[in-house]
Amino acid sequence: MTTVAAYAAPAAKAPLERTTIERRAVREHDVLIDIKFAGICHSDIHQVREGWGEAIFPMVPGHEIAGIVSEVGPGVTKFAVGDRVGVGCMVDSCRECDNCKAGQEQYCASGNIGTYNGMGKDGEPTYGGYSEKIVVDEDFVLGIPEGIALDEAAPLLCAGITTYSPLKHWNAGPGKKVAVVGMGGLGHMAVKLAHALGAEVTVLSQSLRKKDDGLKLGADHYYATSDPATFEQLAGTFDLIVSTVSAPLDFGAYLGLLRTDGALVNVGAPEEPVSLNLFSLLGGRKTLAGSMIGGIRETQEMLDFCAEHGIGAEIELISASEVNEAYERVLASDVRYRFVIDTATI
Amino acid sequence: MTTVAAYAAPAAKAPLERTTIERRAVREHDVLIDIKFAGICHSDIHQVREGWGEAIFPMVPGHEIAGIVSEVGPGVTKFAVGDRVGVGCMVDSCRECDNCKAGQEQYCASGNIGTYNGMGKDGEPTYGGYSEKIVVDEDFVLGIPEGIALDEAAPLLCAGITTYSPLKHWNAGPGKKVAVVGMGGLGHMAVKLAHALGAEVTVLSQSLRKKDDGLKLGADHYYATSDPATFEQLAGTFDLIVSTVSAPLDFGAYLGLLRTDGALVNVGAPEEPVSLNLFSLLGGRKTLAGSMIGGIRETQEMLDFCAEHGIGAEIELISASEVNEAYERVLASDVRYRFVIDTATI
Repeated sequence: MTTVAAYAAPAAKAPLERTTIERRAVREHDVLIDIKFAGICHSDIHQVREGWGEAIFPMVPGHEIAGIVSEVGPGVTKFAVGDRVGVGCMVDSCRECDNCKAGQEQYCASGNIGTYNGMGKDGEPTYGGYSEKIVVDEDFVLGIPEGIALDEAAPLLCAGITTYSPLKHWNAGPGKKVAVVGMGGLGHMAVKLAHALGAEVTVLSQSLRKKDDGLKLGADHYYATSDPATFEQLAGTFDLIVSTVSAPLDFGAYLGLLRTDGALVNVGAPEEPVSLNLFSLLGGRKTLAGSMIGGIRETQEMLDFCAEHGIGAEIELISASEVNEAYERVLASDVRYRFVIDTATI
Repeated sequence: MTTVAAYAAPAAKAPLERTTIERRAVREHDVLIDIKFAGICHSDIHQVREGWGEAIFPMVPGHEIAGIVSEVGPGVTKFAVGDRVGVGCMVDSCRECDNCKAGQEQYCASGNIGTYNGMGKDGEPTYGGYSEKIVVDEDFVLGIPEGIALDEAAPLLCAGITTYSPLKHWNAGPGKKVAVVGMGGLGHMAVKLAHALGAEVTVLSQSLRKKDDGLKLGADHYYATSDPATFEQLAGTFDLIVSTVSAPLDFGAYLGLLRTDGALVNVGAPEEPVSLNLFSLLGGRKTLAGSMIGGIRETQEMLDFCAEHGIGAEIELISASEVNEAYERVLASDVRYRFVIDTATI
């Protein structure tokens, strides 16, 4: 066991504060990672505030982790001390169900084990990336290629794979018109990735406030959803809409922007149920779908793709003591485009 | 112009009564059909009662039409006098949009022209199958193969294609587990067709009242959705669920029955919006979709498939004067499984 410093919420909805946690001793297949950077994801806030249901406290959030391997167990074959590595939203899964065998551990039939707010197979709660070190089984550790700075790589482990996976699954690429709803942490990654995949990319954002950024990051078009004319002008346009917002959308309006056989895929997760008129789906054989992060194999593919295309997240680096303020700013959409904690400041 | 007898609703929500309507003179590419049988579809009732919005009155419902060609225009090449033919939900479309060109006239960008409660290109309202004759452009007329009785063929023109199209689109076939929600006019066709396509078929019906019928028509399994145990027992089972009901479902519960990457496809159309928790879609990359009838080419394919597999609808033949009573019985789910009007009784 190793005692490491961390930032934790002691109870639901409480501010995060500095504390210490225990990390397990390195086992046969474990990798000990000196965490260098940890991204702040909107879902950290959902979970700290129990917006998605009852959670485990104290909670050390953080599933966008980038660091350097400092020790490996004797059975580790994939990583060595000094390697640049990342950890995303999962640290384990059953490894035996059809989904796990197919490399889709995120949809593990028994439920994957979350990097934090989860319960490990050893019966101990998991603690996330807002900490100095983490111990993870090598099968859930990703290699971060040279060419992506570690701080800009951290958000790829959630925001990157969460948008990359549905873009690939629903065939974003040359000749396809893809809309990205929301220009935040997930949205700005979706724009970069969809552009790099070769799609024609449109941002649908509440306002035109971030338009310049959007176009710079790879969007071909940028529309304000606060303007009703947007929905008339773009009716029947898109093959794929990826919604990255966690506020409930007017799905009827957005489904109207799809072409026949188009898909509206949610990667954001509203806390409340949404209302949907099924006629929006019937006329045009449209699909409303959801997608949740991605498997380990696909996450590595995404990191390699990002390295190849020079893609990292746009970040604001903060010190750990600023985390509570950062949460408020995330809720106010006041971040361009991902807060990343410099864990040296914990 | 020809005056023909018909059954019509003179105003919204009014009972249907005998009347006469005018059918246009046969034009260059028109086919005059002596209607022999007309199925009663739940959507007839929705439209007579303006459940789907404002409608055109008087209304002659009926888009499950089977009959015999009695005259053809000089330019007609596909049909001859004496042919067994059918007409479904559409009698025209723009013919120029991408969807029309792709044989998906049901999703015509300008909206297809409904067989009734529509407005023809000539500016005249369309009148449906509860009548003695109908004049239709040959491109929207289907051939009914020998081997399907005309009365059992009529419901294929809507109930058949409405279920065949999504079964084909979402790859129902050998090795696939398909559930059919609702064991009514659409549902019983979905069971027959999914079985003939080679899928393993499960009926999810409110009760076990029609279980014997379901198994006889091709279902492998039959469960009551009024029993909460059904949803535990079948969790994560199906590749495809086709919902044929027009009452709003508890979508969270039904989505829970899908495997990863499974699809719940609605062909029924509730009048009210439904409530949906998006987490039901996220965990397992699930799809909620809609599908609306099918294109003309696919409708012919379906009829040929039915002839090949000896499939017709299970019907209760009624005389035209029983139509109002039949509507009440449809609403009470008291029909096995489709009312068909013998139009000789009009």
